[in-house]
Amino acid sequence: MTRYIQRQKKLMRLVQKADADAILITNFVNVSYLTGFSGDDSYMLVTSERTIIVSDSRYTTQLEEECPELELAIRSTSITMLEMLQKLHKKLKFDRLAIESSSMTVGIWQQLADAFPAVRLISTKGLVEKLRVIKDKEEIEETRKAIDIAQKAFKVITASLRPDKTEKEVADEIEYQIRLFGGRKTSFSPIVAVGPRAALPHAIPGTSRIEDSGFVLIDWGAITSSGYMSDLTRVVPTGKIPKKLLKMYEVTLAAQKAAIAAIKPGVRAVDIDTIARDLIRDAGFGKQFDHGLGHGLGRDIHEDFRLSVKSEDVIEAGMIFTIEPGIYFPGFGGVRIEDDILVTRDGCEVLSSVPKEMDEVFNI
Amino acid sequence: MTRYIQRQKKLMRLVQKADADAILITNFVNVSYLTGFSGDDSYMLVTSERTIIVSDSRYTTQLEEECPELELAIRSTSITMLEMLQKLHKKLKFDRLAIESSSMTVGIWQQLADAFPAVRLISTKGLVEKLRVIKDKEEIEETRKAIDIAQKAFKVITASLRPDKTEKEVADEIEYQIRLFGGRKTSFSPIVAVGPRAALPHAIPGTSRIEDSGFVLIDWGAITSSGYMSDLTRVVPTGKIPKKLLKMYEVTLAAQKAAIAAIKPGVRAVDIDTIARDLIRDAGFGKQFDHGLGHGLGRDIHEDFRLSVKSEDVIEAGMIFTIEPGIYFPGFGGVRIEDDILVTRDGCEVLSSVPKEMDEVFNI
Repeated sequence: MTRYIQRQKKLMRLVQKADADAILITNFVNVSYLTGFSGDDSYMLVTSERTIIVSDSRYTTQLEEECPELELAIRSTSITMLEMLQKLHKKLKFDRLAIESSSMTVGIWQQLADAFPAVRLISTKGLVEKLRVIKDKEEIEETRKAIDIAQKAFKVITASLRPDKTEKEVADEIEYQIRLFGGRKTSFSPIVAVGPRAALPHAIPGTSRIEDSGFVLIDWGAITSSGYMSDLTRVVPTGKIPKKLLKMYEVTLAAQKAAIAAIKPGVRAVDIDTIARDLIRDAGFGKQFDHGLGHGLGRDIHEDFRLSVKSEDVIEAGMIFTIEPGIYFPGFGGVRIEDDILVTRDGCEVLSSVPKEMDEVFNI
Repeated sequence: MTRYIQRQKKLMRLVQKADADAILITNFVNVSYLTGFSGDDSYMLVTSERTIIVSDSRYTTQLEEECPELELAIRSTSITMLEMLQKLHKKLKFDRLAIESSSMTVGIWQQLADAFPAVRLISTKGLVEKLRVIKDKEEIEETRKAIDIAQKAFKVITASLRPDKTEKEVADEIEYQIRLFGGRKTSFSPIVAVGPRAALPHAIPGTSRIEDSGFVLIDWGAITSSGYMSDLTRVVPTGKIPKKLLKMYEVTLAAQKAAIAAIKPGVRAVDIDTIARDLIRDAGFGKQFDHGLGHGLGRDIHEDFRLSVKSEDVIEAGMIFTIEPGIYFPGFGGVRIEDDILVTRDGCEVLSSVPKEMDEVFNI
């Protein structure tokens, strides 16, 4: 039994628990996870007996190559996705169809309801996403690859930083290097934020130059050819470092390490978040850390599982997530330190290894 | 009155026509179009009196920089988007809230319905998208820029094609060159498909090398810093060209030119599609052209407005769209020729200018 069939079987158990006899997968990333198909624009219909991918003729050859075992329903341009589903319904006879409420739009939902008046639509949330939270061996290996590619690119980038380079030029170089090292592309648009711009946690790389400040924040990651992602952040000194920044860095690093040290199966995510948040607050920077501590990572850059004030998640072995506390002062600058963590049976492994100690980063 | 306020006013007229007194914009691209804000993860609430952007503290500074005139509702991590909307509702007092059915998920819709039991939710489709179809002067200029960047990158790419380069290496180089010429990035993952792989209209660049065939199909485009896109396709000869390919190219080019020649305001999109489709069918390749003839282009790579068998759209001045007929033979190869077209008062202007004539491309 291939990993894909295993995943489909696990999914059907969740679907049946949700009192449905079939599920329509509309999230393309979930389709990839369940089949290995790397294209998009394709839906998937899963019942306990059959799994059918509903696509169009642009993808026929690619589907046959990538998913030789899969049943295909290929529509031509003259048939809509919905009409194709109606055709399939005659063969498959489902009465209670689960839909993915986090990806299906209201528009498609209304069309479905009209097209299938006799079928009860059951709104479900994150069934496939729940499976995706726990990574198998191959997924962990792929994540290691994604991290390795990102780290190799980072070495080139920092080695070739020049005072006259703009944020955008550095970001573009990251994109290029990640691809040269075999990545499909970056896992998100890299953040390269010089000095005060590092206070914007989602800064868009612009015209500021490396020489405009003594430090730059870089938040970047890679996607492997099979779609797994890394997500890392470092602060890189490039000139005179303000004392305040060193203090911010020291506190952020201590918070990150304290959080990581407490990670193991069974611990509540909110408790890990609290460890970091309390440490930062006690150092006097409480208001300057106003985002979550981390998020699940895999085929999406933000997967299910959150380390935050409001999280109700509990840590389990096989999870991969980021730990990324930060301290930001508008107009001055910001610090964020982010690593990718794998939860093991009795603790965790920090998968990423870009130097982050005070003495390594600042030569202190 | 700024262009953004104009757009918001036009939108409110459509909202009122839809019998609503406010609209919640959940499509981030639409938020950008209506405000100039370049970030994402932000909603927008528009009533006839007020326009409020609902975002979180990661974006405060960026919003203040980019949209100084806009009313902001910034939530901290301890408040959800929905709770923030409930707060705003007390101030704004809307009774009939339009939502965007093509971007709002079923999950958010259900949460909204629960949170606002007294508000009637009105499902609307493509109100902002309808405004976006007609481009203003600045948008046309931005599209010209996006095309210029893409064309400059293409010149470098074709000048530096080497037999040993893989499809992926060429695609990565396109990404890099587009950025070097000032583009934010590519407008979609470029398609670089060697020989038989060109028969896959959505081929993912892989390990095939330029020397593996006598031709390569390249489908690429750029995004400008303000978010406008280009989308072009050419076939590039790299060695011995099969006669069959020349014939396919000749027919595709004739179909594209015939379609373009007929474009003017008032003509139905389906009629333009038919011109190209009939010409290809009459040349004996009817089954080999199984996708639409073109699509709207702007802030999204596929905007509203379709040239296809089923389209009910009518051409208007100020529209920008692609014309891209193709002929594909699985196992052998494919041809597609794609240009970006601006509809003028009495005809159209082909905005792109990469050589495509038989003699220019094949030295015949």
